[in-house]
Amino acid sequence: MALLERIDSPADLKGLSTDELRTLCAELRRYMIDCCAENPGHLGSSLGAVEIAVALHKVFDTPNDGIVWDVGHQAYAHKILTGRRESFRNNRRMGGISGFPRRSESPYDAFGAGHSSTSISAALGLAVADKLRGGHNHYVAVIGDGALSGGLAFEGLNNAGVLKTDLLVILNDNQIAIDRNNGAMHEYLVRFTTSRSYNQLKARIWDRMGEGRLRYIIQGLVRRLKRLIFRDRQAFNLFDALGFRYFGPVDGNDIVGMTEILSRLKDIPGPKLLHAMTVKGKGYGPAEADQTTWHAPGRFDPQTGERAKGKGGADKYQVVFGQTVTELAEKDSRIIGITPAMASGCSIDIMMKAFPERTFDVGIAEQHALTFAAGLAAGGMIPFCNIYSSFSQRAFDSLVHDVALQGLKVILCLDRGGIVGEDGATHHGAFDMASYRPIPNLIIASPMNERELRNLLYSATGEEYGATVIRYPRGEGAGVPWRGEEFSSIPVGKARLLHEGRGIAVLSIGPVGGAAAEAVRRAADEGIEVLHYDMRFIKPLDSEALADACSRADHIITVEDGAITGGLHGAVAEYIADNGLGCKLTPLGIPDRFIEHGTPAQLYSECGFDAEAILRAIKDEKR
Amino acid sequence: MALLERIDSPADLKGLSTDELRTLCAELRRYMIDCCAENPGHLGSSLGAVEIAVALHKVFDTPNDGIVWDVGHQAYAHKILTGRRESFRNNRRMGGISGFPRRSESPYDAFGAGHSSTSISAALGLAVADKLRGGHNHYVAVIGDGALSGGLAFEGLNNAGVLKTDLLVILNDNQIAIDRNNGAMHEYLVRFTTSRSYNQLKARIWDRMGEGRLRYIIQGLVRRLKRLIFRDRQAFNLFDALGFRYFGPVDGNDIVGMTEILSRLKDIPGPKLLHAMTVKGKGYGPAEADQTTWHAPGRFDPQTGERAKGKGGADKYQVVFGQTVTELAEKDSRIIGITPAMASGCSIDIMMKAFPERTFDVGIAEQHALTFAAGLAAGGMIPFCNIYSSFSQRAFDSLVHDVALQGLKVILCLDRGGIVGEDGATHHGAFDMASYRPIPNLIIASPMNERELRNLLYSATGEEYGATVIRYPRGEGAGVPWRGEEFSSIPVGKARLLHEGRGIAVLSIGPVGGAAAEAVRRAADEGIEVLHYDMRFIKPLDSEALADACSRADHIITVEDGAITGGLHGAVAEYIADNGLGCKLTPLGIPDRFIEHGTPAQLYSECGFDAEAILRAIKDEKR
Repeated sequence: MALLERIDSPADLKGLSTDELRTLCAELRRYMIDCCAENPGHLGSSLGAVEIAVALHKVFDTPNDGIVWDVGHQAYAHKILTGRRESFRNNRRMGGISGFPRRSESPYDAFGAGHSSTSISAALGLAVADKLRGGHNHYVAVIGDGALSGGLAFEGLNNAGVLKTDLLVILNDNQIAIDRNNGAMHEYLVRFTTSRSYNQLKARIWDRMGEGRLRYIIQGLVRRLKRLIFRDRQAFNLFDALGFRYFGPVDGNDIVGMTEILSRLKDIPGPKLLHAMTVKGKGYGPAEADQTTWHAPGRFDPQTGERAKGKGGADKYQVVFGQTVTELAEKDSRIIGITPAMASGCSIDIMMKAFPERTFDVGIAEQHALTFAAGLAAGGMIPFCNIYSSFSQRAFDSLVHDVALQGLKVILCLDRGGIVGEDGATHHGAFDMASYRPIPNLIIASPMNERELRNLLYSATGEEYGATVIRYPRGEGAGVPWRGEEFSSIPVGKARLLHEGRGIAVLSIGPVGGAAAEAVRRAADEGIEVLHYDMRFIKPLDSEALADACSRADHIITVEDGAITGGLHGAVAEYIADNGLGCKLTPLGIPDRFIEHGTPAQLYSECGFDAEAILRAIKDEKR
Repeated sequence: MALLERIDSPADLKGLSTDELRTLCAELRRYMIDCCAENPGHLGSSLGAVEIAVALHKVFDTPNDGIVWDVGHQAYAHKILTGRRESFRNNRRMGGISGFPRRSESPYDAFGAGHSSTSISAALGLAVADKLRGGHNHYVAVIGDGALSGGLAFEGLNNAGVLKTDLLVILNDNQIAIDRNNGAMHEYLVRFTTSRSYNQLKARIWDRMGEGRLRYIIQGLVRRLKRLIFRDRQAFNLFDALGFRYFGPVDGNDIVGMTEILSRLKDIPGPKLLHAMTVKGKGYGPAEADQTTWHAPGRFDPQTGERAKGKGGADKYQVVFGQTVTELAEKDSRIIGITPAMASGCSIDIMMKAFPERTFDVGIAEQHALTFAAGLAAGGMIPFCNIYSSFSQRAFDSLVHDVALQGLKVILCLDRGGIVGEDGATHHGAFDMASYRPIPNLIIASPMNERELRNLLYSATGEEYGATVIRYPRGEGAGVPWRGEEFSSIPVGKARLLHEGRGIAVLSIGPVGGAAAEAVRRAADEGIEVLHYDMRFIKPLDSEALADACSRADHIITVEDGAITGGLHGAVAEYIADNGLGCKLTPLGIPDRFIEHGTPAQLYSECGFDAEAILRAIKDEKR
């Protein structure tokens, strides 16, 4: 790491020779692999983007020039090069740097991004602002081919193509999102870049033309020649059609070529798109060989590539979901599975293997996932659409306008509901329950354990249920048996009484009910008998359970792994105030601020809804 | 109307001759013009789509075959042809039919749509469902060129192009949304369809080839020939690139040509796109001449085209917005205006005339509008992004992830907040305050009158304000003077005391505070002195005002033109319950169901928050 140790900011790149740049790229890879082996992160994408990051910081005048990374998890090399080499060891750890670019973390992070497809719009905004201020800085959006399928990216292209502001979009095309990339755009890119004659043409232009502006002149000539043949202005590829000057495809893992082409593109005016082909996991054998697994591999041995085994705890909620919908699909041919690019993450790949024709990975396209589901429901199917909670924010209007308003029976499963841990502020599923609760015609439920999830998924297919949202967190369940158990139907809006008590009542929703139950148990050990309901549903609320709680207790504690503003807290507060009951309410959950990264346990504690905090709240009320 | 009177369902179209079809189209136009002259509606788009509707119902086996209209307001002819000829006279009236397709209204309305860009996803869902059920029905999405710029439409295309399910997309290209259409896609379509040589080619293929399948064979040959020249599979237009077979452009107002081409396209498998050129306002001189005005012209004289004058009431909130941001832009070069395709609707066109280089109409692209605004803010600008409340649901994630999380000072102005009236359930801005309230780092305000709006817009540019949402309704203000008045800064989160009283307190937010004030006045006339605060901010809440209200009153009435679930109601309930205050809360506002169409006054009354209902609530509490 002799070279890397001398790079404290992009200024240190400027004098490096071609050979040194190559060495630096290798050292960056080694460093990322070593760090991620011990402290897990998004390794694959960042390995693929090393040369893009080095070339950008060598060629452009960052941070005056701005780079927007999309998705941000490919930006590790960028972080390491911009003064965060040492702090990268604490990547994604509580108090350490974020796994994504953050404006608050470094002036080199021009725009934060944990969600995909934002970069073109954001970089366009930065570029327009600079132009209006009379500046001459450059702005670059680096967007993965997976992120390009999100509608927002298209909206950005569509607007940038007409504004004609100077803007460089680098399409980092590794032909894979987390899972296999899906969509016509992806097929188009593959077709486009694998076309033999096209590549021959490229080869002729790029490789034989040598250096200098001649390449560009020739490229322009070829384009004009094509137009001449047709005597019209019909564009020749999708990006040309949208008003971008298209360059490429080029080898995005060739540091010399990348540095060279970026130097040339830098001063070409208007919207430009450079299509760079990269290899996800580049330079690390195991990661190149299995790109999906090595997207975020967890801990591993950097020498052997052997991944650390899980602790062998309880089944993950994801497995319960994937397995259960597959069983339901066996029984009912109307069951459909839909995921926007998270097939393995949400475990719908289990159903995909069993029922490929009834399982759809629609690519990164949350709005489409849900509106497509609504269309399927209108056609008599029962779609389970699984979207990560924080990404489902993209589909809010589809949920209101296409699902709920039409009363269509779509079962929206929100994975990663609540605190997700190391992915941090952009990824916590904090707002789903609170923000979706005002939508009429929706049932919103969150199961406390694996069996409850299994039975809710089953119940939602029944006649009593219409449009339904089922949210559950990332990771392991409570260890409750569920596999192969007989299905049992849960009545809509029915809470479960978990513990008898008086004076104080705990109302919890979701798996955090486990922590609540532990606190209630410990309180009982100290002689405080607390009433505890697992509410199960935030909409409709079980008013009988609430009436019972309010009649037996004058202190109510709500516990939820979600925003307390408007969440279960809000729902129970409305019940208390509307009925003039005068109970005092203590809300435990995610407070009204963005929560950074850390382990889930750290963050539950920070937010104040782990068992310890719940017990503390019980005792406070008792005093 | 001799012919139209005999059309009670699409079955009655089947036997019509070519001449009769032409006559029918003319009669449909006459009927729509006459009805809309008296009972206002979306005239322009529906006039343009007459032939598309007639041809679809003639050629396809509706309602077994499904048509999805996008946006739905072009579907008047469709409604009239499908058993709703007489009920069309009560279009958009309370108890009458909706101005948009509604599944609950007719089996011919395959999918409801008040928001744009949903049709491809929805029709794809219907088509996939049909295929899985072993059906052989046809599904057609009719999408306007304006709607095509929405990211969701692209996501739908991207998925449909790869699934290969039979699906026909008709691009109804009238080259105008409500205002001039914007975006590279639009320019592409114009370039594409106006290209002389392209049209010559078309002319050769389409006009000279005569009838029969020969046309298609030749078209295929030409396509293959093009490919041969380049020896690669690079597509020749944007839709081909996305996996669609492209047909057109054709004259979408030629009923004979449309019937013919639809008959032929019907049985071609896979995803197809027919590019139909139409004229917005077709067949009615005034509407063709001024397409923006005649998008939804209000009442008019069908003979002369003279539009009924407004009642000359108070200035609209829209004018206050447009005028004020223009004044602010004069003082501060950092002020930017952004609209997603509603330049005249939200009156940002006032700023656009004065500062064209600082005002951006980004097309129908709400996500981009807000993320672009975030980019501008990151670049040091102060963007005012104006989005209709119900459309802003599309930008929910941009609000969370790009604006609030990064603490960027974007001023999101939500026009059409609350009940909008005749546009109905899809368009009421019901959920904004309740659903955005859980988002941290946001200031959310709603002014009670014109002066308050003006001063809030001004205040939001000041240092004390960060990311801010300002929501106000469609239409006329309270008649309070505002124009040319000195700006006055409103402290963040500060309520206004409007009336002294005890026992009962009314807490209102937004212009509905006017109705509340009237009720309070009338109560005072009857000797009931009610405390009244205009809360102004739903976030942060003025806790001093709340403490004052709760100390002086044991009955609180919240009044809001928004969803009571989670809205001001929720905020006040949380305050009461968290502090164990025991006040009884009566929430007035939009109840937890979707509200249909009607006049605003009818709907305020139905929801129970007009002055009458507020007074009733005051008296109920008094008893």
